Amino acid sequence: MSGLVESAISTSVTALTSLDRQLCERVFEYEDRINIMEIEIDDMATRLLALQQPMASDLRFLTSAIKINNDLERMGDLAVKIAKRALDLMDLPPVKPLVDIPEMARLAESMLHKCLDSFVRRDSALAREVLVSDDGVDDTRVEIFRVLIRAMQAEPANIPQYVDLMSVARSLERIADHATNIAEDVLFLTEGIDVRHHAETRKS
Amino acid sequence: MSGLVESAISTSVTALTSLDRQLCERVFEYEDRINIMEIEIDDMATRLLALQQPMASDLRFLTSAIKINNDLERMGDLAVKIAKRALDLMDLPPVKPLVDIPEMARLAESMLHKCLDSFVRRDSALAREVLVSDDGVDDTRVEIFRVLIRAMQAEPANIPQYVDLMSVARSLERIADHATNIAEDVLFLTEGIDVRHHAETRKS
Repeated sequence: MSGLVESAISTSVTALTSLDRQLCERVFEYEDRINIMEIEIDDMATRLLALQQPMASDLRFLTSAIKINNDLERMGDLAVKIAKRALDLMDLPPVKPLVDIPEMARLAESMLHKCLDSFVRRDSALAREVLVSDDGVDDTRVEIFRVLIRAMQAEPANIPQYVDLMSVARSLERIADHATNIAEDVLFLTEGIDVRHHAETRKS
Repeated sequence: MSGLVESAISTSVTALTSLDRQLCERVFEYEDRINIMEIEIDDMATRLLALQQPMASDLRFLTSAIKINNDLERMGDLAVKIAKRALDLMDLPPVKPLVDIPEMARLAESMLHKCLDSFVRRDSALAREVLVSDDGVDDTRVEIFRVLIRAMQAEPANIPQYVDLMSVARSLERIADHATNIAEDVLFLTEGIDVRHHAETRKS
């Protein structure tokens, strides 16, 4: 499932940068498969909880899996949102710069890859790297908004396109947030400590 | 916890419509308490899973509670996002219309209230009402974006304010999405049927 989510996200970003309609369709297909897997995994985890009555670390593993499953499914939804904005952009006059969006996408994809790796390998150091990266993504998003607002003011006719690009930046930020949630679950799983809410800031 | 989340959301919307700095602070206080409760409830549910080894409907209740807890906490985050945009708007020259945002907020708040009621009373008919309302919220959001894009084109100097209002509309849409998730969990709990993804459309 995480392989599918990674493919959905990277395909949606390529669909956006290359304005490729077929790639958007592929994202929608990925999402259908992700949705089916989410339900299967959820059923499986719930059934294991019921039948095996697991204790301690097994129980923690299963409740983490239920949460991570949910985060992954929502990342699939966000890939679909990006693909839809790519489709919108294909119907509008082209605008030049995608500003820092490809860079932001690379950051978010690397966070996703690391948090999934940290889950599979129970690697808490790697999970911590994800928590640190999240600030970089947030800063990039704020900078992208600044650039896009200036572009809107310079070319009011192209505001709809820039609104689409804002929406893409927002989706990438949320993908990074879900990766952060997963990294927090991994830390809870590996170290038994709850890091939720501790690193939260109210800056943006 | 759901009472706190309802208060956080309605306070954030009032803070926005009345541009009241103190109300924004109150939203941040609500969020702190919501975050603490999320961890407590999560611990409690996990401990019950471990110690009571519940079967069938009790197990379903606990796994639903874990998910609903998560949705509620994220709604608290969205109330904070709305309050932050209200603070931004207080530092910028005023713009006139809040367009349909108060109406959209009323819809989202009513969905939240209904889905929580449906959970407490195990009322599947009420949960179904929430699923139906979600389309109305999505349509309102699309219409608000249309109006805001026109306003940006007419008054480029005020684009930053309109971007803030777009962000508020987006947050309200996501609050409605979380209410829909909760209603789906209630249907799973009361009727044992999985309605996830069935009603999803790709229209926006």
